[in-house]
Amino acid sequence: MKTIFRSFFYLFILFHFSIAQDTDSTIIRSFFSQALSDDFALENLKFFAKETKGRLPASSQALKAIHFVQNIFEKMKLDSVYLQEVMVPDWRPGDAEYAAIHSKKLGEKKLNICPLGYAVGTGKNGITGRVVEIHHFDQLHDMGETLIQDRIVFFNRSMDRSVLNTMAAYSMAANQRVYGAIEASKLKAKGVIVRSLTTRLDDFPHTGVLRYKEDIKKIPAIAVSTNDAEILSSWLKEDPELSCKIITRCTTFPDKQSYNVIGEIKGNEYPDEIIVVGAHLDAWFNTEGAHDDAAGCVHVMEVVRLFKSLGINPKRTIRAVLFIDEEIMQTGARKYAEMVKLNEEKQLAAIESDRGGFAPKGFTIDASEEIFTKIVALQKYFIPYDIFKFVKGHSGVDIDPLKEFNVPLIGFLPECQRYFDYHHSENDTFGQVNFRELQMGSAAIASLVYLIDQYGL
Amino acid sequence: MKTIFRSFFYLFILFHFSIAQDTDSTIIRSFFSQALSDDFALENLKFFAKETKGRLPASSQALKAIHFVQNIFEKMKLDSVYLQEVMVPDWRPGDAEYAAIHSKKLGEKKLNICPLGYAVGTGKNGITGRVVEIHHFDQLHDMGETLIQDRIVFFNRSMDRSVLNTMAAYSMAANQRVYGAIEASKLKAKGVIVRSLTTRLDDFPHTGVLRYKEDIKKIPAIAVSTNDAEILSSWLKEDPELSCKIITRCTTFPDKQSYNVIGEIKGNEYPDEIIVVGAHLDAWFNTEGAHDDAAGCVHVMEVVRLFKSLGINPKRTIRAVLFIDEEIMQTGARKYAEMVKLNEEKQLAAIESDRGGFAPKGFTIDASEEIFTKIVALQKYFIPYDIFKFVKGHSGVDIDPLKEFNVPLIGFLPECQRYFDYHHSENDTFGQVNFRELQMGSAAIASLVYLIDQYGL
Repeated sequence: MKTIFRSFFYLFILFHFSIAQDTDSTIIRSFFSQALSDDFALENLKFFAKETKGRLPASSQALKAIHFVQNIFEKMKLDSVYLQEVMVPDWRPGDAEYAAIHSKKLGEKKLNICPLGYAVGTGKNGITGRVVEIHHFDQLHDMGETLIQDRIVFFNRSMDRSVLNTMAAYSMAANQRVYGAIEASKLKAKGVIVRSLTTRLDDFPHTGVLRYKEDIKKIPAIAVSTNDAEILSSWLKEDPELSCKIITRCTTFPDKQSYNVIGEIKGNEYPDEIIVVGAHLDAWFNTEGAHDDAAGCVHVMEVVRLFKSLGINPKRTIRAVLFIDEEIMQTGARKYAEMVKLNEEKQLAAIESDRGGFAPKGFTIDASEEIFTKIVALQKYFIPYDIFKFVKGHSGVDIDPLKEFNVPLIGFLPECQRYFDYHHSENDTFGQVNFRELQMGSAAIASLVYLIDQYGL
Repeated sequence: MKTIFRSFFYLFILFHFSIAQDTDSTIIRSFFSQALSDDFALENLKFFAKETKGRLPASSQALKAIHFVQNIFEKMKLDSVYLQEVMVPDWRPGDAEYAAIHSKKLGEKKLNICPLGYAVGTGKNGITGRVVEIHHFDQLHDMGETLIQDRIVFFNRSMDRSVLNTMAAYSMAANQRVYGAIEASKLKAKGVIVRSLTTRLDDFPHTGVLRYKEDIKKIPAIAVSTNDAEILSSWLKEDPELSCKIITRCTTFPDKQSYNVIGEIKGNEYPDEIIVVGAHLDAWFNTEGAHDDAAGCVHVMEVVRLFKSLGINPKRTIRAVLFIDEEIMQTGARKYAEMVKLNEEKQLAAIESDRGGFAPKGFTIDASEEIFTKIVALQKYFIPYDIFKFVKGHSGVDIDPLKEFNVPLIGFLPECQRYFDYHHSENDTFGQVNFRELQMGSAAIASLVYLIDQYGL
């Protein structure tokens, strides 16, 4: 009797489980179908790209983007929509920049350049100096002050094309942009030119943040397009005496108030357990920032829209967070983490989308072994959508401060082979985002949020 | 003793196997690194797109492409390079086409159109008639001759955006383009307008082949851009009396001689076992045909180039085949299959690339259960490159006739979400192909060829 009862019990469990799984699969399927059918995502992406181009953290464009999202969240009738105040850096690139090389032997050539983010300007007369090409910091240090003093240091290490993972290739080359000005200034260089971080040869300068250090003189720094980096390098071989003149008008003003935008669907069983989905609103001055990170913002907005439009009431609270100032100082990210700490909120998981609006491949997971295993177990739901990759890895800059509170962190991972064709450049436009690839991503993130909401972690 | 011996034997086998696997993994890794590092692929793609645009099977541009490939194969010092003669259809679109709608109520509007491939022309005075919008053949048949006679039938069924697999969505909508003229002509329609087969709303007309039937009158047929299909449809709702004038000047001339291009690396152990890698050289009149199928041609050329440049001597013969006339009559494909039959060649496997130059996802396999299982077992080598999908499915139009001889057929499967943004339209340009995505594909195909060569099937 007991055995029969137990068999029935197992059958019941099995049946129940398979029904649950079927329901889940159906809901996930509907996320994908719906995402591919509606035009909201494309309209929102277009607004970010075309109406708020160059939305630096303290800019009027960023404010426009903030109110745009707030307004959409309110129209969606989310359970709560609010702005979180954040003091952000007010760095401005200035209204013109110029760089040209002058060689007695080869003539003169204007370069395609732009200032690095957060760099100081050159002053109105600009700076002029001989140029030293450097590939690694070791090489710079070996040359020492006598050979570097009063020169302009030209960091020309390429992103390694043969590396499969473009994010890894970027990391391998990015230190010259981030720390080049510090290292060059230690040896009394006048300024810094950095080869744009892209695997392509083209004419777009790619900006990105640099860092300075207290007590080390802040020197101007610019990015040069890869084509012009090649030319500068070849000219230097023929005429090591050539000089470069650089004018940039960047200025940093006092911090300004801006906002993270937050919208929530309250959970109907465990409202205090919060699942965060985030991306960043700001973008560099020289770009529509379509992939970086308007696409991420659209993903986040689509997640809550899909839940609402499909009438799915989550058990836990789903919180969409559009962070301000990812690119410069990550003040939005830190401010958000402070709030979590202050309110002793339970964040069940945080997911960030900041790798572009390409077709989804999977998720990178930064969590305990136990939770990692639980998330990997969800992979089976994603196989029908060719989403296979659930691996350990970095999540995202905006949610990273939550690690302190042991929040499981997840990064959306799309197919990134073409990301650095666009990244931080004028080439990161609305037209470079494919609607279907973007929306496969929205649905993938919504599905993961749904599953975490259903089953906890 | 025997046990110890057996243990040693197993250890030896294990060791041997793991060395073999390591070597294979190293070689595969080198395919990827090399493919991403060299520029040949991009230069070749550019030549096809920019120098042989509109390379219809019988055109001078196709001949230029043929000799370009032949020349490159010869420069690679392949073991044999030859042209296989093929008589191909000489259909020409004519030097102008025009379509406009006229409504007494709404005015006049010119439409973005192009002839369907292989369609007859309208004659120099064109055709003019009232327009009937149709979504399904059933609807057409229900209307019958009285309502269709002398009308222009406007097939306006969209590709279903909510379908995940764009190839499937295409198949679901393509019958109106391929067979629309036959079905409309049966009911004495004057001509056919077909909504372009793309999920996007834009201004590009997308062509593609149609079929006629003996004994059924051949009527003119054009594709209209999706934006204009929407406009035509909305005008028809307001004014069902509106008329459309169409002029096309397509003509079919007698068949002409063209060629398949073949290049081989002879196997050093089993030269009579042939592994075919194929793609098609021709493209529609209105396009650079960058994704369809210059990208495939580049894949094929890269496979043999990678073997040569890495100094890998295959056991079996690797045969690169650039087919002519995939788009219209598949004469190249049939001619090739005839040769295989005539020479009683053993084709170990045939792989085709004709789904665009996007990032690789996997392969579709059309083979016996046993061989399918063997190919799926190779998947493990592809995991480091995020290539997971080894599934049953159609291979490619050019290698399909080999099925008769039980050749295992394999189709390269890239990420196709954006394929139909470009397919058969002016939008299929060089600039729409990303170098890294393209080359990940070249390396993936080379790797599969390598593994099949090493281990047979």
